[in-house]
Amino acid sequence: MQTLTSYNIIVLLMSLGVLLTTALALGELAQRFHQPAVLGELLAGVLLGPTVLGALAPEIGTFLFPLQGPNAIAMDALSTLAIVLFLLVAGMEIDLSTVWKQGRVGCKLGIASIAVPFSMALGAAFVMPGAFGRHVGADPVIFALFLSIAISISALPIIAKTLMDMGLYRTDLGMVVVSAAIFNDIVGWIIFALLLGLINMGSGHGGSVVMAIPLTLIFTGAVLTLGRRLIHRAIPFVQAYTRWPGGELSFALILGLFGAAFTEWIGIHAIFGAFIVGAAVGDSFHLRERTRAIIDNFISFIFAPIFFAGIGLKVNFFAHFDLSLVIMVTLTALICKLAGGILGARWGGMQGREALAAGFAMVSVGAMGIIVGMIALEAGIISRRLFVALIVMAIVTSMISGPSIRLILRPEKRRKLYNMLSSKLFIREFKARSRPGVIQEMVYLSCTGNGQGLDAPAVNGAVWSREEAMSTGIGSGVAIPHARIKGLKEPLVAVGISSRGIDFDAPDGRAAHLIFLVLTPAEDPMAQLEIASEIARLARDMDIADHALCSSGFTDFLALLKAPGAIKK
Amino acid sequence: MQTLTSYNIIVLLMSLGVLLTTALALGELAQRFHQPAVLGELLAGVLLGPTVLGALAPEIGTFLFPLQGPNAIAMDALSTLAIVLFLLVAGMEIDLSTVWKQGRVGCKLGIASIAVPFSMALGAAFVMPGAFGRHVGADPVIFALFLSIAISISALPIIAKTLMDMGLYRTDLGMVVVSAAIFNDIVGWIIFALLLGLINMGSGHGGSVVMAIPLTLIFTGAVLTLGRRLIHRAIPFVQAYTRWPGGELSFALILGLFGAAFTEWIGIHAIFGAFIVGAAVGDSFHLRERTRAIIDNFISFIFAPIFFAGIGLKVNFFAHFDLSLVIMVTLTALICKLAGGILGARWGGMQGREALAAGFAMVSVGAMGIIVGMIALEAGIISRRLFVALIVMAIVTSMISGPSIRLILRPEKRRKLYNMLSSKLFIREFKARSRPGVIQEMVYLSCTGNGQGLDAPAVNGAVWSREEAMSTGIGSGVAIPHARIKGLKEPLVAVGISSRGIDFDAPDGRAAHLIFLVLTPAEDPMAQLEIASEIARLARDMDIADHALCSSGFTDFLALLKAPGAIKK
Repeated sequence: MQTLTSYNIIVLLMSLGVLLTTALALGELAQRFHQPAVLGELLAGVLLGPTVLGALAPEIGTFLFPLQGPNAIAMDALSTLAIVLFLLVAGMEIDLSTVWKQGRVGCKLGIASIAVPFSMALGAAFVMPGAFGRHVGADPVIFALFLSIAISISALPIIAKTLMDMGLYRTDLGMVVVSAAIFNDIVGWIIFALLLGLINMGSGHGGSVVMAIPLTLIFTGAVLTLGRRLIHRAIPFVQAYTRWPGGELSFALILGLFGAAFTEWIGIHAIFGAFIVGAAVGDSFHLRERTRAIIDNFISFIFAPIFFAGIGLKVNFFAHFDLSLVIMVTLTALICKLAGGILGARWGGMQGREALAAGFAMVSVGAMGIIVGMIALEAGIISRRLFVALIVMAIVTSMISGPSIRLILRPEKRRKLYNMLSSKLFIREFKARSRPGVIQEMVYLSCTGNGQGLDAPAVNGAVWSREEAMSTGIGSGVAIPHARIKGLKEPLVAVGISSRGIDFDAPDGRAAHLIFLVLTPAEDPMAQLEIASEIARLARDMDIADHALCSSGFTDFLALLKAPGAIKK
Repeated sequence: MQTLTSYNIIVLLMSLGVLLTTALALGELAQRFHQPAVLGELLAGVLLGPTVLGALAPEIGTFLFPLQGPNAIAMDALSTLAIVLFLLVAGMEIDLSTVWKQGRVGCKLGIASIAVPFSMALGAAFVMPGAFGRHVGADPVIFALFLSIAISISALPIIAKTLMDMGLYRTDLGMVVVSAAIFNDIVGWIIFALLLGLINMGSGHGGSVVMAIPLTLIFTGAVLTLGRRLIHRAIPFVQAYTRWPGGELSFALILGLFGAAFTEWIGIHAIFGAFIVGAAVGDSFHLRERTRAIIDNFISFIFAPIFFAGIGLKVNFFAHFDLSLVIMVTLTALICKLAGGILGARWGGMQGREALAAGFAMVSVGAMGIIVGMIALEAGIISRRLFVALIVMAIVTSMISGPSIRLILRPEKRRKLYNMLSSKLFIREFKARSRPGVIQEMVYLSCTGNGQGLDAPAVNGAVWSREEAMSTGIGSGVAIPHARIKGLKEPLVAVGISSRGIDFDAPDGRAAHLIFLVLTPAEDPMAQLEIASEIARLARDMDIADHALCSSGFTDFLALLKAPGAIKK
């Protein structure tokens, strides 16, 4: 039996380790700047691939990521599995019922968001194929269709995340946009799958290619109706009679693998089967949140980076970067997609700023466009130059989307406690042992450290008189002394921990171990309320005070907020 | 770049799907008979490999699991990753502090459980190497050492699970056995790693082989002291400053990959590095339960079956089955391990039945022995005949362990509500609309369906007089009418759901939607209490009544108990 040598195993483990580390780090950096993680993951591949590492230190590049031999095959197998599983998760995130619930508006936006850019791009690609980098020998019809679908598809995960970050997800606008994105996603992938079938019919390779298009339609229809119902009925059996949660986890993955194998066999791509099966599995309300979370976390953080970084490994982005082509493709995509989004929104009855925001929300091409581009490159339909341009277009459209919506709607910034804390305003152990002493210690720390020019004695007086009027111990070991301060620009939160406990006259009689000083601008009456209610929720839901006592410093404490769960001792 | 063809991708997806399905199904079956899941997973490989499928339908076998070409390499790469990650999880399950807490007794049992069988088996293998199937040309010292370590190692996960199943995990005996198993695990793997180093020094291949043994010791020491502390300090940073829980998940996996690459590079096996890194990561009390659960579930249910079933794919178990060798190896292992366990237990101060139970608990060789055998086979140290014998030995020792402890200690059977319910005693919607009516409906169902010859009117009278004395509505929509019945052999639980709700005079005033009828033997006063307290916990912790109203039948309801979480609507 053909096996990996010890050398192959070392390279496999090293290359995966390096790839995941770089992808995680750059993905994190991208998120820090409110950009999609996939941007960082792609960049990781560009850094480690022929573009940078391969140019600077080719011997390291060839050692870690050889282009031939067992390691190339192993990495390709992992990438293939990764993208199949990623599309399974993408399918699971699709909630078909959302589309129906949003009704007409969502459907109209969804239809326009794919039909308008698709036909606009199709026209443009036919009229001036040269400007879009069609290489000689490429079938003009197939080339134009591919380019149009790569431009028309939208990235549901990125759209959903952008809306969530801005607190717009649960609004009417948010729900309409999400349902339109789901519609776009499903229809986009079906068109893409049909296109792949068309190509295989043309090229005539494989066994069942003549049947590719009818089989695709039958598969999609059968899985989304009969299959969906069977899966929905099967899940309780899996839960009741196999080990939990492993049985349900394996069940979803196994179905995804078989769905993928089937669509690969009928001559379209494996990912389409995984996506449709994912949509059917994810639609069942029997599927437990815990199973979704395990699959989602493992695949989004381990498998997806392997695929997206793997793209950067395959192509030299520098050598194939063609500025005029990049600008041409990106501008076309922006114009076509914006036109589709805005027209669709107005058709659905939206007005003014709202329609504009919906248009920009639908602009993200993101991961979906990257995947379409990758497959087109592998199928020989597009050149490397156009592939690079498509990747840049996918990323730029996703980067523009969020900030544009922010400019148009100017949504209120959501205050997250996590973002307001800083190590400068953190006291691991109070020197003071009384309520006034503790308040004073926090006030003086806040007034010196923040640069907003606060008058410490005045602030202290304000907080203390508020405290005397009504004690701020909220129970569960937490107290929130606070005041509204004139002239303060941004809310200020200081945190301190007291191991012995300070009496803050809490309703449950417990001494306060975790004390938040909350200073808010007098002009912003809501700020105080929002911050206090977040703290109250932490106190109630996760015994934050008890856990804080186990934390050894600011990072530990911050980790408690970000990664809820006990610090075990 | 060398990539998989469409055909390769179809085979890859199909073979993984078939492998996981078979492994999951047989693993489930094994668990049903209180056997370790790894037995079922191995069997899946035997069925799909050359032993059965390869013999019955060789063309299907070669299609799904080719021995040469890209698919063989891809499967080998996945198996390698699977076993590396499995050992990472095995390491994470090790809690070093448990060993210290149990102190002398655990250490003595641990030392004896490895030293006694190791030296006994070493002696036997030296004296009669032929009886243990040493093939001509094998180095007698290395052969004997390998056989001894394969016999002395114990399977911590199987031991822990056996003790949990019997409710012995939290007892003194359980904690001593677990700490001894941890000791055995760590020391066993270190000895095995040193052995691998020794072989590579002998064979002289690779670059740094002369240094293998000192490097192994330095690596182990450094990771378990300095590395452990660094990781412990790094985890809060990862939690506080990267996405949760993906950052922590990736962090653990990346460290495991690098540890594995390092030990593979120094000339011992990759899994050793993953195991030691796992022990260091798992030891940090900062690591959140949620991250552990994600890693554990995904790896135990997706990766581990790929590896263990993969073993069955590699060897024809039928062709290489040598009955006398199998008996010889299995008996030797049983005698050596039992001797070590019992001597160690008595040395630690245990007596009589307890010492005997501890001895049988330490007998499981399980997954660990299988892994050692696999590596020895690949290194050419043992023949296929001996490999098959080792696998059988590993499985048999694990199968014997649990039932023997049960015979020796006769622990009380733990009553799990899950096991007492049956679709025959389930009423999805009551016909009756009053308290007496509902009770009567359940009593008559129970008395007809169970074959214990109960007198329905008498039972009904008993339950109703109990109900009149004091109402059994416990609140949260749950009621537990009950009675102790003379002559009943086993407790009987019937369940019914009422959508409109029945007044059971609950303290919180809510009508009962979920009603359990609990009949217990008059001779077993504890039964009633145990069952009622489990129901009360379900009512309190997970709003079982509300969820039950959403269930459409018995399987849905059972799934609620097994896989806690809401049925979303």
